[in-house]
Amino acid sequence: MSKPLILVSNDDGITSKGIRALVEAMHEIGEVIVVAPDSPQSGMGHAITIGNPLRLAKTDIFESLGVEAYKCSGTPADCIKLGKHHVLKGRNPDLVVSGVNHGSNLAISVLYSGTMSAAIEGAIEGYPSIGYSLSDFSYDADFSHAIEHIQHIAREVLKKGLMKGVALNVNIPPKQNENIKGIKICRQAKAHWEEEFDHRKDPYGRPYFWLAGNFVNNDKGEDTDVWAVDQNYISIVPCQYDLTAHHAIAQINDDWDI
Amino acid sequence: MSKPLILVSNDDGITSKGIRALVEAMHEIGEVIVVAPDSPQSGMGHAITIGNPLRLAKTDIFESLGVEAYKCSGTPADCIKLGKHHVLKGRNPDLVVSGVNHGSNLAISVLYSGTMSAAIEGAIEGYPSIGYSLSDFSYDADFSHAIEHIQHIAREVLKKGLMKGVALNVNIPPKQNENIKGIKICRQAKAHWEEEFDHRKDPYGRPYFWLAGNFVNNDKGEDTDVWAVDQNYISIVPCQYDLTAHHAIAQINDDWDI
Repeated sequence: MSKPLILVSNDDGITSKGIRALVEAMHEIGEVIVVAPDSPQSGMGHAITIGNPLRLAKTDIFESLGVEAYKCSGTPADCIKLGKHHVLKGRNPDLVVSGVNHGSNLAISVLYSGTMSAAIEGAIEGYPSIGYSLSDFSYDADFSHAIEHIQHIAREVLKKGLMKGVALNVNIPPKQNENIKGIKICRQAKAHWEEEFDHRKDPYGRPYFWLAGNFVNNDKGEDTDVWAVDQNYISIVPCQYDLTAHHAIAQINDDWDI
Repeated sequence: MSKPLILVSNDDGITSKGIRALVEAMHEIGEVIVVAPDSPQSGMGHAITIGNPLRLAKTDIFESLGVEAYKCSGTPADCIKLGKHHVLKGRNPDLVVSGVNHGSNLAISVLYSGTMSAAIEGAIEGYPSIGYSLSDFSYDADFSHAIEHIQHIAREVLKKGLMKGVALNVNIPPKQNENIKGIKICRQAKAHWEEEFDHRKDPYGRPYFWLAGNFVNNDKGEDTDVWAVDQNYISIVPCQYDLTAHHAIAQINDDWDI
């Protein structure tokens, strides 16, 4: 049987430690092709580039592994689109993976996440897709304890597939003394960001703002992603890109004067 | 009774014709405050600005209406966050509206839409929120036939509220000889974009790509947003920001070896 074809992207940029960990992990499972942003794209949500040209260039960054790689000037979603059309050229990946993100993408963060936008774009294109995030924001985060789990999840998806319209949001606890306890299939916690803005002055005395804030979770459920990662489990939330709030349709039809 | 407080944003930028139409329409309903991008932000999805400073400046662009307005260097989602924190300063808007977008945001486009990201950000903050789009991409699109409907929908939301966690995606047919037939509460059509990339050379002979593509709808349902707008109805899709695919949780728990 031929090796599965795996398309890899991320949002921290092609030179980040997290994508190297993911490329090395996937290289042991299949044929890997990388199309990733040439610069950090954190917080890009599901942005695509329509008002500007996109650049795509081959890079030898993963040459030591024999892995073909391309850097792209666009967003993570752009990378998947361009990867499909101008790198894979008609070959369909058996799996699209994104990450490993430096920092968690729990609860509502999935909406702002560039990591997950690449995975969701993969799902929109009809490919089984997974976004991986590690709950450690540092530049030199330790991914070593995560590798076997990342590979296990990828192998399960390759073997069993995913429901149409669903991508997986995988969050991995940071390296701790205790081993990871296992995997929980979760719902997205009803947590939110309480934003604050740092109000500063630039060197010319002009004001600017910098987005900051605190993650606040009042969701006590033990079936949530936040709970799982707090308890040293890996959380997997199956995510859909159909945003229709079906439960609200009947209510509006009943209540409104239309 | 005091007038409702209405926060207005968009993604085409504060100088677009669409936001002026929306500001004028809302000005007849309540007290309007505008916080909108200083440049076009189409296709920004739910992007937020975390790696760069944000600028916010007062502008007299809507002075003839007596409407307070601010232009922001960030994304539509940034505008809502900064609007809440540094313009409204503790006052809660009774309604957040975004648009009117020049061009439709039907089916999967909701995910890429800057217009809807402002509305969804409003919903995340707990405010009743609506994104309005007109199916006419032209710079000088005619919004005149849409105004009464835009106001009617805003008044219904102000009167009856919206379910927690839900924002409305409103799409309005373009101006035609026939009057708009009415309003349909819809689900998001299962349509998609078949992307193509224009492959070009810049003046220096270097290659670049430009995202293009065709909207393809194979969803025959007469309960979809695409169907409604095609039939000259206004479509309203209630949208949620909890992406959990609840139906997939049990299936993964059953099938997987975890």
